[in-house]
Amino acid sequence: MNNINDEYYMGLAIQMAERSQGQTGINPVVGAVVVKEGAVVGLGTHLRRGTPHAEVHALNMAGEMAEGSTVYVTLEPCSHHGLTPPCSERLIREKVARVVVASEDPNPQVAGRGIRSLRENGIQVDVGVLREEAIRFNKAFIKFITTGLPYVTIKTASTLDGKIASRTGDSKWISNEAAREMVHTMRHRHQAIMVGVGTIIADDPQLTTRLPVPGLSPVRIIVDSQLRIPESARVLNDGAAPTVLLTTDKADPDKVLALRERGIKVIPCGEGPKVDLKLAMAKLGEQEISSILVEGGGRLNGSLIQEQLADQVVMFFAPKLIGGLESPGNFMFDGYSLMKDAVHLTDLEVEQMGDNVCIKGTPVWSGATKEGLKI
Amino acid sequence: MNNINDEYYMGLAIQMAERSQGQTGINPVVGAVVVKEGAVVGLGTHLRRGTPHAEVHALNMAGEMAEGSTVYVTLEPCSHHGLTPPCSERLIREKVARVVVASEDPNPQVAGRGIRSLRENGIQVDVGVLREEAIRFNKAFIKFITTGLPYVTIKTASTLDGKIASRTGDSKWISNEAAREMVHTMRHRHQAIMVGVGTIIADDPQLTTRLPVPGLSPVRIIVDSQLRIPESARVLNDGAAPTVLLTTDKADPDKVLALRERGIKVIPCGEGPKVDLKLAMAKLGEQEISSILVEGGGRLNGSLIQEQLADQVVMFFAPKLIGGLESPGNFMFDGYSLMKDAVHLTDLEVEQMGDNVCIKGTPVWSGATKEGLKI
Repeated sequence: MNNINDEYYMGLAIQMAERSQGQTGINPVVGAVVVKEGAVVGLGTHLRRGTPHAEVHALNMAGEMAEGSTVYVTLEPCSHHGLTPPCSERLIREKVARVVVASEDPNPQVAGRGIRSLRENGIQVDVGVLREEAIRFNKAFIKFITTGLPYVTIKTASTLDGKIASRTGDSKWISNEAAREMVHTMRHRHQAIMVGVGTIIADDPQLTTRLPVPGLSPVRIIVDSQLRIPESARVLNDGAAPTVLLTTDKADPDKVLALRERGIKVIPCGEGPKVDLKLAMAKLGEQEISSILVEGGGRLNGSLIQEQLADQVVMFFAPKLIGGLESPGNFMFDGYSLMKDAVHLTDLEVEQMGDNVCIKGTPVWSGATKEGLKI
Repeated sequence: MNNINDEYYMGLAIQMAERSQGQTGINPVVGAVVVKEGAVVGLGTHLRRGTPHAEVHALNMAGEMAEGSTVYVTLEPCSHHGLTPPCSERLIREKVARVVVASEDPNPQVAGRGIRSLRENGIQVDVGVLREEAIRFNKAFIKFITTGLPYVTIKTASTLDGKIASRTGDSKWISNEAAREMVHTMRHRHQAIMVGVGTIIADDPQLTTRLPVPGLSPVRIIVDSQLRIPESARVLNDGAAPTVLLTTDKADPDKVLALRERGIKVIPCGEGPKVDLKLAMAKLGEQEISSILVEGGGRLNGSLIQEQLADQVVMFFAPKLIGGLESPGNFMFDGYSLMKDAVHLTDLEVEQMGDNVCIKGTPVWSGATKEGLKI
């Protein structure tokens, strides 16, 4: 049983935010709880971009009880006119007594102004209650709002010798049911999914979200330097979600035109011969894609690591050894000469899922890599 | 706090057995506890091959209190004259009232005869208390006594992309301090360690057990098809533990003679060009080596998997991605065409050790492999 205190109500607000992951687009997930005279009087969460913020729903529910209440909100209330009016004004108008905020808004248009405006209007504001938990679910939002670039999660499923298929290309099945179901949850929670055209040619996948309950399917991004995608590919025909093709300036203009006439977005990224992935991320950001789940082959995964474009790595390991010197690996790239320069994963999380093991981490690039970048 | 019952005393006997792993050679580890009038009156464990068994030490300690006592012993008391007299006779002579046994002895010379002989002499015998726990520490003994072959544990340490070194061969360091200390505990608990000659040439390791307290160093087995080992190699010169070279019938006789004159055991295994590992295991068994820890490179590990010669796999993963299409992998072998034929690991144990992850399992070969063997 949890003791009743600020964390008790903020924890509920965070739960509501957590469960709305995947449905807010480039917007953050936010939860709000209004408490008055020792009881919850309002609950709200941000549901979808362009619709009311969490505080507004919660204050609507509270009605006249909002006056003199304490409002718990996972993210600093906004202070600017965006697609909806500023929440700070609404809180002031409702005459709430106290606002408890988990984390400041990294959005440069807010950045402390929401909190300041509340305080200037005599509302007590306390900041930082369960900050880390609240931030965890908004990593994509934070990256996107501060850099304009999507948050990239690489997901792999391999044997314990790091192979994603046998030497003949067979990969059915590596991971278990539980791992595959988790992947569909991850698809729901990302705005887009990315694969190489090789995967389309080999497996003709749908790349949709399939769960025991309905879910949201991500935008499907295919990396296809030479527009080799077959006209019959499901992702071009099933209409289950938008499809975006990343190619190069050298792509056959007739093919580009034909695809665009079918409603497929084709984005040229650099002069080739390969898609410039760094440029691609910038262009996808311009399309307001703030999070991408990469379910690529080893080469796409490897390129994203080599170019330091990954924000999170989620690796599923099945308890198998397949062998094959030429069997494709989970990360195929030129790599580093010295072990000390290897990409390091921090914030490691290890979870056993039946006979599969899931290892999550955040890549940190060594100072000694070619670009010398630090993330 | 544990409640006092049969498991309470057997648990203590198992603890004593567990801590003597590595010191009994081809013999099992065994613990015994004598209880009389509600109190422990004798404790014993088998210390070293050729010395008294656990029951004897415990009965010696109990002295006159042994009469009418209950004796808890992790393994069925022996009934044959081996290097020491049969324990069943001693228990009968001491007039103990009851014997509680965790597991029957798989040794065909005992195999239930110890238990039968006790019962025939009016002693109550109960079998199976904490059987699984007791068996766990005697897997090598059980395999060796029933097949004459050593129990083989493959240990690997790799990055999350399955590499044991960079493309230039650099491997310092992959695993963390905790993982490396665990490897030394594993060395203490195995009778022998096995590496390929490539490891000797590259690193000139000692292959000894180095722990915060003194430990036992394993026999060092080097797989060296062409006797390429440098004369100056530490394992040939430091006298820290016996060294055995596995080679082929084609090995240069002058080299063989020179090595033997230095006290190195050289065992030819097949006509070559490579050491016949299956034959090697039989010959090592004849040398009374009942357990081998393989700390080989990817090719030795891979060959042992391909030839179905491994009994346990212990894999350490460091939170790193090193890349390199030619970087050596943890298991390098031809492998299987279909994922469903991959070697499967059962009895999976996953342990997070700081930022390293240890995954242990028992290989099960699919029915579809070339030999069609089932283990």
